[in-house]
Amino acid sequence: MKSLENLIKEVLHIVKEAGEYLLSVLSSEIKVYKKLEIEVFTEADKKCEQILTEKLKKLLPEATIVGEEEFSEKSIIPKGVYWLVDPIDGTVNFIHRMPWFAISVALMQEKEPILGVVYNPVTKEMFYATKGKGAYLNGSQIRVSEEKEIENSLLATSFPGECKKKGFERCYGLFKELNLVSQGVRRFGSAALDLAYVACGRFDGFWEPYLKPWDTAAGMLLVLEAGGKVTDYSGEKYHPFKNNIVASNSSIHEKLISYTSKYLNLL
Amino acid sequence: MKSLENLIKEVLHIVKEAGEYLLSVLSSEIKVYKKLEIEVFTEADKKCEQILTEKLKKLLPEATIVGEEEFSEKSIIPKGVYWLVDPIDGTVNFIHRMPWFAISVALMQEKEPILGVVYNPVTKEMFYATKGKGAYLNGSQIRVSEEKEIENSLLATSFPGECKKKGFERCYGLFKELNLVSQGVRRFGSAALDLAYVACGRFDGFWEPYLKPWDTAAGMLLVLEAGGKVTDYSGEKYHPFKNNIVASNSSIHEKLISYTSKYLNLL
Repeated sequence: MKSLENLIKEVLHIVKEAGEYLLSVLSSEIKVYKKLEIEVFTEADKKCEQILTEKLKKLLPEATIVGEEEFSEKSIIPKGVYWLVDPIDGTVNFIHRMPWFAISVALMQEKEPILGVVYNPVTKEMFYATKGKGAYLNGSQIRVSEEKEIENSLLATSFPGECKKKGFERCYGLFKELNLVSQGVRRFGSAALDLAYVACGRFDGFWEPYLKPWDTAAGMLLVLEAGGKVTDYSGEKYHPFKNNIVASNSSIHEKLISYTSKYLNLL
Repeated sequence: MKSLENLIKEVLHIVKEAGEYLLSVLSSEIKVYKKLEIEVFTEADKKCEQILTEKLKKLLPEATIVGEEEFSEKSIIPKGVYWLVDPIDGTVNFIHRMPWFAISVALMQEKEPILGVVYNPVTKEMFYATKGKGAYLNGSQIRVSEEKEIENSLLATSFPGECKKKGFERCYGLFKELNLVSQGVRRFGSAALDLAYVACGRFDGFWEPYLKPWDTAAGMLLVLEAGGKVTDYSGEKYHPFKNNIVASNSSIHEKLISYTSKYLNLL
């Protein structure tokens, strides 16, 4: 396999190209901002995935590409190296032309991300990391925040569709509790960007249930490589096939877990 | 008084200059992203207000500038024309270097905004409107969305500090109810930008309690001039000295009010 250092440069080019395509979808067609028709969105999503998968395939023929399959902790995790690709993380935002969505690409080895890229084409912020080599934003190394107190922390979360079916009350209970003890909980609507923002210290912590492996794989590596901590709600080691995640600057992690752990067996 | 058409051009210049100053605060001082020290923030807030007030004063000597005073519906509303100025709307975001805050400037006549500007210096999105002349984003006219169903709507709100003291349960009750029936409720943390986003159709609706006049005055004019509707929680005419606001694309307004009105006498 090519070295991660060589791979990452080419992955950044590929992701940027896919981002340009998404921007062209947003800016074309209409003069006045208007929600994307579902057909337009579906085509954009497919075409973006196609750009990514074709080029990643060429770049690393030995790695399969994992996309839309359903996964659970009990699924058979692919062997060897493979890509986890999310062409548009923050789908609802994208459809509404909210400039807050990202492309998320991770190279996995068994359950572990070894390369991760999160890119917001609107703000042109490219976050990336390779295992053991730190995390970067547009060429500058990034670090998690140094905040030690939950009372001074800015947090983030969201409520995936599953919250409506199961555990909705519980999703909100946690949201309310952590709003009360912190500077506030943001809900921007893209888990990949939330994680990237923990990595660069803008958010101090993040949690969310029911995410998919391709939502968190790249972002979790960013947080780890920026000096943060990533676990599940109970404080156990996280991997992207688990259905609940807590990421933080490390200093406030124990405190965060003291809240999330109460909600674990309610999921 | 100068015509609104002449005034607005100069106001845009002034706001842009203040925005450049805020950007310089965010990018200076550190290589690695890190929360602003409270002294740095306080100075930035003051200095930005100073840039705005000095130049607005020169532009329109007959108009007073209203800033940090406490207002309620029972306060004496200034007579004649005056400015409502918020140098940094989205304070918590700014402190945490989240690229989601705005400068908000409105020219008022009695209780009514007649000119409004909302500017996010990070994304360089300048929203502006003058009474009767439509709303604009970076030179292009904007319109509210055409969405008719709350089920397909993307909404926004936030929870000001007062929610912790009074009505917290009630703030969350409304948040939960409207999450359940819509595509989701975002919490980005800047009311001025939330309103601007309703005006350009990215959000279909917005509500929030306990806001200050300078948080909503410019944004409400944007929504009205973009074809939307702005009321209080009960559906009555809104003005910036009321303590609760609902803004929408107009089509979903009645439905939104059917939820917010239940919470009005709980505030």
